[in-house]
Amino acid sequence: MTQPTPSSSPTDVSPPAGATAGTRLPPLAQVPPQVHQLDDYAALAEPRMAPDAWAHVNGVAGAGITAQANRAAYARWWVLPRVLQPLADASTAVTLLGQRLAHPFVLAPVAYQRLAHPQGELASAEAAMALGGGCVVSTQASETLEDVARAARRGLGWPESPGAQTVHGGEAASNQPGMPWFQIYFQRELADTLDLVRRAEHAGYTALVVTVDAPLKLRRGFVLPPDVDAANLRQHTRMQDPVPSLADSPLFSHPLLAAAPGWADVAWLRAHTTLPIYLKGILTAHDARLALEQGIDGLIVSNHGGRVQDGLPPTLAMLPAVVQAVRDWAQAQGTRCPPVLVDGGIRSGTDAFKAICLGASAVLIGRPYIHALATAGALGVAHAIHLLRAELELCMATAGCAQLAQAGPHLLMPA
Amino acid sequence: MTQPTPSSSPTDVSPPAGATAGTRLPPLAQVPPQVHQLDDYAALAEPRMAPDAWAHVNGVAGAGITAQANRAAYARWWVLPRVLQPLADASTAVTLLGQRLAHPFVLAPVAYQRLAHPQGELASAEAAMALGGGCVVSTQASETLEDVARAARRGLGWPESPGAQTVHGGEAASNQPGMPWFQIYFQRELADTLDLVRRAEHAGYTALVVTVDAPLKLRRGFVLPPDVDAANLRQHTRMQDPVPSLADSPLFSHPLLAAAPGWADVAWLRAHTTLPIYLKGILTAHDARLALEQGIDGLIVSNHGGRVQDGLPPTLAMLPAVVQAVRDWAQAQGTRCPPVLVDGGIRSGTDAFKAICLGASAVLIGRPYIHALATAGALGVAHAIHLLRAELELCMATAGCAQLAQAGPHLLMPA
Amino acid sequence: MTQPTPSSSPTDVSPPAGATAGTRLPPLAQVPPQVHQLDDYAALAEPRMAPDAWAHVNGVAGAGITAQANRAAYARWWVLPRVLQPLADASTAVTLLGQRLAHPFVLAPVAYQRLAHPQGELASAEAAMALGGGCVVSTQASETLEDVARAARRGLGWPESPGAQTVHGGEAASNQPGMPWFQIYFQRELADTLDLVRRAEHAGYTALVVTVDAPLKLRRGFVLPPDVDAANLRQHTRMQDPVPSLADSPLFSHPLLAAAPGWADVAWLRAHTTLPIYLKGILTAHDARLALEQGIDGLIVSNHGGRVQDGLPPTLAMLPAVVQAVRDWAQAQGTRCPPVLVDGGIRSGTDAFKAICLGASAVLIGRPYIHALATAGALGVAHAIHLLRAELELCMATAGCAQLAQAGPHLLMPA
Amino acid sequence: MTQPTPSSSPTDVSPPAGATAGTRLPPLAQVPPQVHQLDDYAALAEPRMAPDAWAHVNGVAGAGITAQANRAAYARWWVLPRVLQPLADASTAVTLLGQRLAHPFVLAPVAYQRLAHPQGELASAEAAMALGGGCVVSTQASETLEDVARAARRGLGWPESPGAQTVHGGEAASNQPGMPWFQIYFQRELADTLDLVRRAEHAGYTALVVTVDAPLKLRRGFVLPPDVDAANLRQHTRMQDPVPSLADSPLFSHPLLAAAPGWADVAWLRAHTTLPIYLKGILTAHDARLALEQGIDGLIVSNHGGRVQDGLPPTLAMLPAVVQAVRDWAQAQGTRCPPVLVDGGIRSGTDAFKAICLGASAVLIGRPYIHALATAGALGVAHAIHLLRAELELCMATAGCAQLAQAGPHLLMPA
Repeated sequence: MTQPTPSSSPTDVSPPAGATAGTRLPPLAQVPPQVHQLDDYAALAEPRMAPDAWAHVNGVAGAGITAQANRAAYARWWVLPRVLQPLADASTAVTLLGQRLAHPFVLAPVAYQRLAHPQGELASAEAAMALGGGCVVSTQASETLEDVARAARRGLGWPESPGAQTVHGGEAASNQPGMPWFQIYFQRELADTLDLVRRAEHAGYTALVVTVDAPLKLRRGFVLPPDVDAANLRQHTRMQDPVPSLADSPLFSHPLLAAAPGWADVAWLRAHTTLPIYLKGILTAHDARLALEQGIDGLIVSNHGGRVQDGLPPTLAMLPAVVQAVRDWAQAQGTRCPPVLVDGGIRSGTDAFKAICLGASAVLIGRPYIHALATAGALGVAHAIHLLRAELELCMATAGCAQLAQAGPHLLMPA
Repeated sequence: MTQPTPSSSPTDVSPPAGATAGTRLPPLAQVPPQVHQLDDYAALAEPRMAPDAWAHVNGVAGAGITAQANRAAYARWWVLPRVLQPLADASTAVTLLGQRLAHPFVLAPVAYQRLAHPQGELASAEAAMALGGGCVVSTQASETLEDVARAARRGLGWPESPGAQTVHGGEAASNQPGMPWFQIYFQRELADTLDLVRRAEHAGYTALVVTVDAPLKLRRGFVLPPDVDAANLRQHTRMQDPVPSLADSPLFSHPLLAAAPGWADVAWLRAHTTLPIYLKGILTAHDARLALEQGIDGLIVSNHGGRVQDGLPPTLAMLPAVVQAVRDWAQAQGTRCPPVLVDGGIRSGTDAFKAICLGASAVLIGRPYIHALATAGALGVAHAIHLLRAELELCMATAGCAQLAQAGPHLLMPA
Repeated sequence: MTQPTPSSSPTDVSPPAGATAGTRLPPLAQVPPQVHQLDDYAALAEPRMAPDAWAHVNGVAGAGITAQANRAAYARWWVLPRVLQPLADASTAVTLLGQRLAHPFVLAPVAYQRLAHPQGELASAEAAMALGGGCVVSTQASETLEDVARAARRGLGWPESPGAQTVHGGEAASNQPGMPWFQIYFQRELADTLDLVRRAEHAGYTALVVTVDAPLKLRRGFVLPPDVDAANLRQHTRMQDPVPSLADSPLFSHPLLAAAPGWADVAWLRAHTTLPIYLKGILTAHDARLALEQGIDGLIVSNHGGRVQDGLPPTLAMLPAVVQAVRDWAQAQGTRCPPVLVDGGIRSGTDAFKAICLGASAVLIGRPYIHALATAGALGVAHAIHLLRAELELCMATAGCAQLAQAGPHLLMPA
Repeated sequence: MTQPTPSSSPTDVSPPAGATAGTRLPPLAQVPPQVHQLDDYAALAEPRMAPDAWAHVNGVAGAGITAQANRAAYARWWVLPRVLQPLADASTAVTLLGQRLAHPFVLAPVAYQRLAHPQGELASAEAAMALGGGCVVSTQASETLEDVARAARRGLGWPESPGAQTVHGGEAASNQPGMPWFQIYFQRELADTLDLVRRAEHAGYTALVVTVDAPLKLRRGFVLPPDVDAANLRQHTRMQDPVPSLADSPLFSHPLLAAAPGWADVAWLRAHTTLPIYLKGILTAHDARLALEQGIDGLIVSNHGGRVQDGLPPTLAMLPAVVQAVRDWAQAQGTRCPPVLVDGGIRSGTDAFKAICLGASAVLIGRPYIHALATAGALGVAHAIHLLRAELELCMATAGCAQLAQAGPHLLMPA
């Protein structure tokens, strides 16, 4: 099976070419005191990235309506307080398919992080692990998945080579912290996809995240600088895509369209690995049910941060129906409820608390941690996660909610 | 029968007079890389048009509430994705009264296109045809309908003189591409109207579009430059309208008001041509039913882009009820459902997809293609259409919708 | 009976004092071509008025929420078109208590119009009459009511002294054009109020308009320039209001509060004149019924343009319930339905059409005609009215509504 | 019992350190004529405060959504007028637990008022008393509660030492004006809390206000200038809080968290004083019932002005359900209804009237009076209260409501 171009590189990057670096400021060695909120990192990050890389990281599809709606959806809910509640054993911990995180913040897969900082994915993965959270490494990482795994082990305080501590996501190793997850785009050649899976398994990744919300793409013209590439795909065959004429069908006439990934490919992947698989890019109960029927272990409600298709609904608005479908399915099957994560527009611990009240098991953070990475490397990312956790704890305290398992819609009110 | 002034020239242009050209930039020979969306053409077009022509093309009635609402109506709907669906035979093609278009984008009738580019309607018609879409040529075109027809034939790759390929809109010639449609304003003299119809038939136009939403007008003072005129109306009688005093009724006292076009005139036109007739400017189910009872073949839901009367409802909001009325009528008659097109506020392929999900057979684009025309002539118009089609294909892929006939409200969600 | 200060001078003007005129531009002798809408007058008027007078005329109470809401209420309704309807005998005429106006635009009572133009109320009244509309002259006019009546007669093309043409509002003189109405604030001394009524009757005014929505006031500090005063009140006693200390009740401790006008005063006025009486400042069905029970002939739904109390509901939102109450009352009484006028936020003929569809008999225009007056005197006011009428006619034509008596909620749709 | 840091100093001030005063303007000796509304004080206050103190006073949590929503909630209600009603005995007086105020405006507890003006709490308390209103003195006042009590007695025109006039909140002294209330944060050491209570009782405060909506806090970095401190807490033990590392739980790992105040502490306080106790920071009917069951005498619906936790609902939206719960409880108990006050976003007398219509007994003003204090000391505060009272009186007059006991939801309409 071969896969069409579009899904093999949805962030739309042409082969190495020159890109001017401009007068970028260097990363900071410590976090400046004026950073009180996640959003405060943007102004610090922008002068530390090349303009086109900055535009690429923060880019949105179309008029950005979906990207805006993702954020606005959080303002549609109020948190209801409960005063004077006991908080002695309060904790932000969550357990995802047997992997225990100290808090529900997971770094979303973002490509080419060396665009933001010289240490790229090494820095963000180490920081995420050091803070006891989760991390999804992109197929299109600018560091090899093996190098990122080593950095992650450093963050966990583990020896650099995999050993007994590795958590493979099964029940056996449950309730322990664990390594990052690896994100998969189906490659043109099935062998290339399988190779990525085997490498991820070998390096100790604890789950696969298959992104399914970028079936085709429109060219936008961002060109990678010479020192940044898709490190994991160096040995894969690159085909030159035909350039369509104005009169041609821009996407539907693509020769490889007939081989775009489908549900059968998901089933194939499920049959070829024992790692837990998350599907990322599910927005409807309909697709959630299809995914579970294919043996998918968890879902990530996502619209790709509004980067791929404008006009998709905000993720928080879709979350409750997906959660309901998953719970109904689990009840009908008599199994434990698969985790449902959500991303898009989360900018504070309060946002995370709202998502969890509406059924999320954990949340993914995207652009904001790249801003923190560009600002101060691993330290910035760690601080950003710390900030989110602090806000979450304050919000839980305000709501009188000592454990996230107690969070629910009864602690919210529509605005 | 004579017709009052207002409807014979609703774009409100006084006889030739001097207009300063300023320091207009020349049109570009290719589309600059920063054009990623239709709206990106506006900034390129403005310095390439005379200020008063620019203001005229982009003008709106009143406070522009209707013009704004036309666009905002599209943001009230989200597209629901379906992931991992087969797209092997995906196509954007639509068939309108037996005329097959490669995609549902039709250029709306816009007057005096030489205000935007020296080749005016010749360029836009040729581009529309070359890209397999539709085009409506205005009564008030600044090129003769015969010249525009020749340009259209070039776009289709046909010989310049009409022959066997001409599609007259009947069943006989169904499922073939075809020539533009000609837009009709009822003229003061019925003979003049009939003359336009006969010329359009002879030149190979495949349908008539009767604009009925501009019954009267208020003067606004735009004056055509000396090299631009209503080419199709050169031989028509021009009467000098009386200038009312402040104390007079501004419109209702007009001597010709009693002869404003009515439904009887539509019936007369229906009886005098075998070309399919679209009525443009229908917003209500009530008027839709009246139109169908007069033998009208198709409807265009339009408020004239908010140019004539502010305070009219946005077209997308009115579309579903008009579509329902047309479907009910067709079912009661036992006939095939007449096409319902829509214009106003469409700025992306996603917008078009939403309109089609809500029942539109195709969509018309107005001001934005004039911006593309001013920027880069036929190439600009072709690129603008290509962009819309690419966005539509991406949106269809996201929605898992391989054919527009499968589009429907189940793929949308109210925002 | 004496009346407290507040209601005798709600526009809050201290006795004559110096006010700097600045570098005011002179009024124009003709209307510039860029005036396409009523709002276009504001920019022309501002440099033609003293800054404090400009601020006074355009002032709003509090945060201006009510003033904004008055305008915004009109954008909540769409006009539904009816295409191709007969308009041969179309007319904007309305009949109010037997007085026939060529159109439904009435100039609202605005104090001290010499602040805007040297001819003040003389200019606006003459223009209103010349254009066949209505006009309400303020108690606090800066020209005497007798002089304004003479100007109005000139506008009507009548001899300067009252004679047979005078319409007193009864059935006898019905369906004729007529003189302005006179606005009444209850004065401190009942004799002063009665004196105003008798003068208005004698000068030929055809109705009284009692403003009841300004029971008390807060001082704002605008000081009249030396050449402008309340011409009608020159012979009235002026009492010096006590200045309360900070610790006192600001309004409720006022010595004259006990004598604020009440429904009994309205009954007294009804008993002392045969002129029709409108009550201005009614917003609820409750107060509408009370007014009709006192023998009031017509109502003006008004919140004083948001000038007196912020937080009052927008007038258009209150109109339908008031109209319903009036219709129910008329039906129960077996009488003809008293007219209900509305003001606040009307800036176009389309706005007026919407109000009329929702039950208004006519509409009052306030600040905008003062802008036109400042710009070009009587000519400006006449042009402003002409503009409104032209927009109303276009809107009626669009809606296929040839007579205002046919307007109704079926021609509107909530936005 | 000891209490954790967070609740002992929720305004987050580190021990004395240097803070630059910049070029602050001196306070004014009289209120400038351009102050027409409460909001007008902000522009005058800003240059009279150190930038960081200004930022601290006006600071909001997170993105400020709750702070904005507090204000916006008032615009969601219109006041319904009743014209021509009798106002002879109109009064703004309210009685709260037997303490009669001339009007319902109470100064909210704000810490460190010497940041705004050299006389700090002395000025605001004296002004509040002189105008017959209420005042809550903060635990974190920058003047001792004894000194503030003396200033309050001056404002009341009483001798400086407490005597027979002191109102202790019981029925015996009902319907008299009275001294301020004292706000309590539970201190780390229970003995310290009890010491504050005894001092407040001794100094003549008439009620305690326990703030319960700031369970934990995030550090923000404002540092007090050397001449401002928490005057009431000088003798209390200050512990150095441990600084958590990035990887630690920011709040939940705090060693003192287990001892955060709970309902048992409220019961303890109730048992140790005979002063009436208000709980401040209640937002839900659920917590309102719990409070009443602990013997709490009154509630203050508050979200701390949006300063502590963003995402809490606006207070006005929560008020009706709290009021209903309190009324239901009182009816079930057969007792008089405890007072429910509200703060957050009130900027005018009209806002106060709306809150009272929705069930509030009185309202608290926070930041705006600090602006008035910074502008002109006690005179500014007095003028601000006078302004609010004047607006309330005008609003009551417009609504035809002569007594606040007659105010109710029938005088409002949802916007």
